[in-house]
Amino acid sequence: MAARRRLGAHVRGTGRNGLRAVELGALDEACLTIEQAVHGADIALVCAPVDVLGTVVQEVLALAPSTCAVTDVGSTKRDVVAAAAGDERFVGGHPLAGAEVAGVDHAREDLFDNATWYLTPQEGTGGVILERVHRFVSGLGARPHVVAPADHDRMMAAVSHLPHVVANVLVIQAAGALGGERLPQAGPSFRDATRVAGANPGIWTGIYRANRDALLEQLDGAIQHLEAARELLANGDPGRLEDWQAQAGRRHRELLDASQGGGASRELRAVVPNRPGVIAQIALTLGEAGINITDMSLTPSPDNTRGSVLLAVPAEHVQRAAALLGELGIAVA
Amino acid sequence: MAARRRLGAHVRGTGRNGLRAVELGALDEACLTIEQAVHGADIALVCAPVDVLGTVVQEVLALAPSTCAVTDVGSTKRDVVAAAAGDERFVGGHPLAGAEVAGVDHAREDLFDNATWYLTPQEGTGGVILERVHRFVSGLGARPHVVAPADHDRMMAAVSHLPHVVANVLVIQAAGALGGERLPQAGPSFRDATRVAGANPGIWTGIYRANRDALLEQLDGAIQHLEAARELLANGDPGRLEDWQAQAGRRHRELLDASQGGGASRELRAVVPNRPGVIAQIALTLGEAGINITDMSLTPSPDNTRGSVLLAVPAEHVQRAAALLGELGIAVA
Repeated sequence: MAARRRLGAHVRGTGRNGLRAVELGALDEACLTIEQAVHGADIALVCAPVDVLGTVVQEVLALAPSTCAVTDVGSTKRDVVAAAAGDERFVGGHPLAGAEVAGVDHAREDLFDNATWYLTPQEGTGGVILERVHRFVSGLGARPHVVAPADHDRMMAAVSHLPHVVANVLVIQAAGALGGERLPQAGPSFRDATRVAGANPGIWTGIYRANRDALLEQLDGAIQHLEAARELLANGDPGRLEDWQAQAGRRHRELLDASQGGGASRELRAVVPNRPGVIAQIALTLGEAGINITDMSLTPSPDNTRGSVLLAVPAEHVQRAAALLGELGIAVA
Repeated sequence: MAARRRLGAHVRGTGRNGLRAVELGALDEACLTIEQAVHGADIALVCAPVDVLGTVVQEVLALAPSTCAVTDVGSTKRDVVAAAAGDERFVGGHPLAGAEVAGVDHAREDLFDNATWYLTPQEGTGGVILERVHRFVSGLGARPHVVAPADHDRMMAAVSHLPHVVANVLVIQAAGALGGERLPQAGPSFRDATRVAGANPGIWTGIYRANRDALLEQLDGAIQHLEAARELLANGDPGRLEDWQAQAGRRHRELLDASQGGGASRELRAVVPNRPGVIAQIALTLGEAGINITDMSLTPSPDNTRGSVLLAVPAEHVQRAAALLGELGIAVA
């Protein structure tokens, strides 16, 4: 819907609710097959449950034009990036958007407004491809954010999947502790911490399993931190326990501060050699340093040996971004 | 403020802000000493940080009239009940109410409206004392809920103290996993689960320590449940993981359903022998069965050997309540 109305795109789709999607104005055409849907496309978006996502991406890559960018919207990224097996047309994607309601009947043009939309290129991802998807996502209203697939999955394990597992644990633990007792009316910390307990078992089991290694690592970390807290409480002096509580407060404020963002952007221009992976490398280098690329534009030189790239980054990071590009051997104007 | 305006009580207090409290209409008299404050009192409410609460309760019991009910508002109960050493005048209390702001300047008559207010009698607590405090708390606008001190502390450990420790753990874990990365905008599960991370370190370290044994037990339970979840994810089949997720959802709904309450009440009348502990035993027996006493009234017989007790309980529990009293040898009308 956003692609049609905001970008003037011609949008084809294939899936169960294709005709309804046309009726609602989310699609121009409903197709019976992936082959029909991707015929002549500039961009293909793959949306499927995480456990079959890799297979569908492979099908789409096999059928899409040689110049078509292929991306997805799955909530874990290493598996699907691995399934794309270094195809330069693929860049992983994950929009952090959603609503209480699902399905094409609830399609909204503004669903992605200001939403973070992770893009996870690999080394082989083509610069033109990454730029096209980056601009497409911006055009939908979202804020693209480039990050390596493994970093994405570790972050999601820490800030989403682990809290879901922990919510379940708190509920199961409390059910045991309360016996037949009523949940105290005013248990705001418990209510907040357990809001997502038992969320859609089919979907969430799929997500846990798709991100298993990263989630196991976060679970191990959480268990260790709980054991450390237990030890401080059992045997530590009160001062150390208080320090621990205060430290959590500081970290919490830092994480929240870091997530504010949204100030002015500044532009960086550079000329880069036209070889595979350069743009992906730039984007990942900045992403790892916590520098978000708010806008990106790529113009090949007439002889196609080089390209001119324009990157917009938050004003406060412009000097560090230039320095990081310098370390990659890329001169910045 | 509520006691003065709703119960017509004459309220004396002692503490740093006594004069300001008089100015604001929260007190009739500000006293310089506990002795002056409790002189001739029917009820004494002790409010102090948990680490000194037991000592202050002992002081108050030493100075209060022999017929004065003494209660407190501390957030853990076993320690303070132990400090009262079986004095029949003492019943522990814990109102689940509070606001973003603290201090006498923010005193409000309606702070306790519909708030759960736990009362934790011990065997030695006098029936007249428990009834008086129960009625007083109802009169302030709160919903008294009788529970044994150890059950109270275990419940609070599970639904409040553990979620606070877990919030810290999630923050510390995420700070490590994110490195310099920004917290994703849309991390609602993380934001909800960590809202209380690092809450007032002085106060919360005091609460953790005052409820140490119960909190250690809940921490051990949570660690075990996390390890079980880890094992299911690492080695279990998908079906068992999905069952686990679904089970958490069911427990969650049960806990939320159980906390709705608030329907019609029915009255039970009984004649009980006038010996210490009978009323406390009745209240605790019903509390353990998850049956809340919404109203209580006690009338001694003329010769003072027996008492007539009226108990209001939720209508759906009236038969079970009668059966439980029957098991205690108390005939119900």
